[in-house]
Amino acid sequence: MKVDGKPQRSIQLAADGETVKIIDQTKLPHVFEMVPLETLEEAAHAIRAMLVRGAPLIGATAAYGMALAMRAKADDEALEAAAATLLATRPTAVNLRWAIDDLLARLRPLPAGERAATAFQRAGEICEEDVETNRTIGEHGCRLIAIAGDRKPAGEPVQILTHCNAGWLATVDWGTALAPIYQAHDSGIPVHVWVDETRPRNQGAGLTAWELGKHGVPHTVIADNVGGHLMQHGEVDLCITGTDRTTAQGDVCNKIGTYLKALSAQDNGVPFYVALPSPTIDWTIGDGLTEVPIEQRDGREVAEVSGRGPDGKVTTVQVVPDGSPVANYAFDVTPARLVSALITERGVCPASSEGLLSLYPERRET
Amino acid sequence: MKVDGKPQRSIQLAADGETVKIIDQTKLPHVFEMVPLETLEEAAHAIRAMLVRGAPLIGATAAYGMALAMRAKADDEALEAAAATLLATRPTAVNLRWAIDDLLARLRPLPAGERAATAFQRAGEICEEDVETNRTIGEHGCRLIAIAGDRKPAGEPVQILTHCNAGWLATVDWGTALAPIYQAHDSGIPVHVWVDETRPRNQGAGLTAWELGKHGVPHTVIADNVGGHLMQHGEVDLCITGTDRTTAQGDVCNKIGTYLKALSAQDNGVPFYVALPSPTIDWTIGDGLTEVPIEQRDGREVAEVSGRGPDGKVTTVQVVPDGSPVANYAFDVTPARLVSALITERGVCPASSEGLLSLYPERRET
Repeated sequence: MKVDGKPQRSIQLAADGETVKIIDQTKLPHVFEMVPLETLEEAAHAIRAMLVRGAPLIGATAAYGMALAMRAKADDEALEAAAATLLATRPTAVNLRWAIDDLLARLRPLPAGERAATAFQRAGEICEEDVETNRTIGEHGCRLIAIAGDRKPAGEPVQILTHCNAGWLATVDWGTALAPIYQAHDSGIPVHVWVDETRPRNQGAGLTAWELGKHGVPHTVIADNVGGHLMQHGEVDLCITGTDRTTAQGDVCNKIGTYLKALSAQDNGVPFYVALPSPTIDWTIGDGLTEVPIEQRDGREVAEVSGRGPDGKVTTVQVVPDGSPVANYAFDVTPARLVSALITERGVCPASSEGLLSLYPERRET
Repeated sequence: MKVDGKPQRSIQLAADGETVKIIDQTKLPHVFEMVPLETLEEAAHAIRAMLVRGAPLIGATAAYGMALAMRAKADDEALEAAAATLLATRPTAVNLRWAIDDLLARLRPLPAGERAATAFQRAGEICEEDVETNRTIGEHGCRLIAIAGDRKPAGEPVQILTHCNAGWLATVDWGTALAPIYQAHDSGIPVHVWVDETRPRNQGAGLTAWELGKHGVPHTVIADNVGGHLMQHGEVDLCITGTDRTTAQGDVCNKIGTYLKALSAQDNGVPFYVALPSPTIDWTIGDGLTEVPIEQRDGREVAEVSGRGPDGKVTTVQVVPDGSPVANYAFDVTPARLVSALITERGVCPASSEGLLSLYPERRET
């Protein structure tokens, strides 16, 4: 998508063909800065410290992390160690594992001398596939927005609520939840996006608002507490979120707080859509509530808030009293019964085993 | 309640009998500071700028504001002007109006020379009545906590979720939602409180956590997004919140986000209680969703977060990108159908017209 009129991607290969460049998203929305990744450790750090975040971008970064590792040392031991290092960075992200397994399967049979080039090539392909996947998700989701628009008086924007950041910053380009919104906007359908702040890390206020604003999409930032009130008063036509992990029965593990918005959508008859690329489907898990482990992150994310201080620099302030304990659950599970439909690269389907299998029949057990 | 072992109230009369002292709650939890109110304007400012907040404390402060005004000038014009000034400070708080009307009714018939003394005396009574009201709410609510405790294995704390601050800082003492919790804790029932941060003003993280901690009540601060996840996993035994305004049919207008927690409580079979003193019941309104106007506050509350900076001083940081619009709805309405029971100073009742009238039969139309 565009930043001040110039097309950008969240992960790019530098002109040397071997240096990976990412946006340090911890500095957004106040500083837009590309940083190079030269080594496996830098790639692992970028995932662990959330310079990159979002399931698809984590997958792409892990793939390049494998390539960077192979460039340094490509024997079997280095290959397995690189995979283990990257896998340990974020336990919940299912397409972190997907990307690493993909690379492992391709690299293991190869002689060490061919591994780096193959890994770089495959990482690049994974990025291109992600862009194409998201563009297609955008097409399918844009139709749902168009339908909502047809029901509104001419010229009135379709009001869309989103939670966290499932935009191009979370993928290589387009995003998942935001791809339909970008396509609607670019095709002339008037849209307005309610952007949940998304405490504790504020990916909505800091990232979604930034990328929508830079691309020129009308939006308004709200506290996470507000969505229910807006839906009660007819101010939301539909919700679209992303997901870190979707179970085979259509339960959605996504940023903490997603479940509350889905409850509110159901209570007010507002469609609640979840956009996802198929690598985020975990076909091995059925019941998300009992089977998906929920990552707990550093309590400082709750105790503290970062933003631009009075001196213009990014500053962290403490918002809880000294001595008060905090808990930081990173994700929750929205049961399939609250999800109106899943938007995938193959089309739109009900959030159910049958729905998913209708789009992915090759997963049907015979 | 206690602060480091010493009993405190949120509003007190100084030794001179005429100077009102309040806690500047905008500086909590980092600085605990009493500030004097000497004039009507200082009282109005304290309400408007939220040095004091919480419906009962706003009422008490308004009552003293009337007294301070009468001390300066007590003719009819000054009386009506004082009432108008105070009424304009916070449009949603129903017992702001209640306290002012109470004072007006008592002061209007009096000669100007008697108004100040009567106003000070009545403001003091309003404070004492509030303390007694909240103590009684605490007794009734404590029984509900005890019942929940009886269902748990011995020694395991009753897990209680609360939103915003309806503690002693929001009243003169005890609080409304927190009064049952203080009574349970003081009587030896083990409790643990999940404290919603309550963006955008963070009254949970900043005030509820502070007062619970200072009194010694076990608690954990969580982002507003977390409560649903905790309820899904059996980590919440009951919810108690306060309310700024309860309608005659039991709809509850409270801090934005209350509705989302009530939805989650219902979805997970968790009791959702609302504690309220009867002056917050608006008997003139039935349907809270269509009839309660929702205050919108300064967007900077959403765009910015205040906390203690690296230098130890309270600092404000900006969390949204430059140029991104924000919206700041202060309250939402939780429909009576989602409220398990109302806890009032006269007892516990269903959230319905019949329930409320069973406790307040004098309101029944004949």
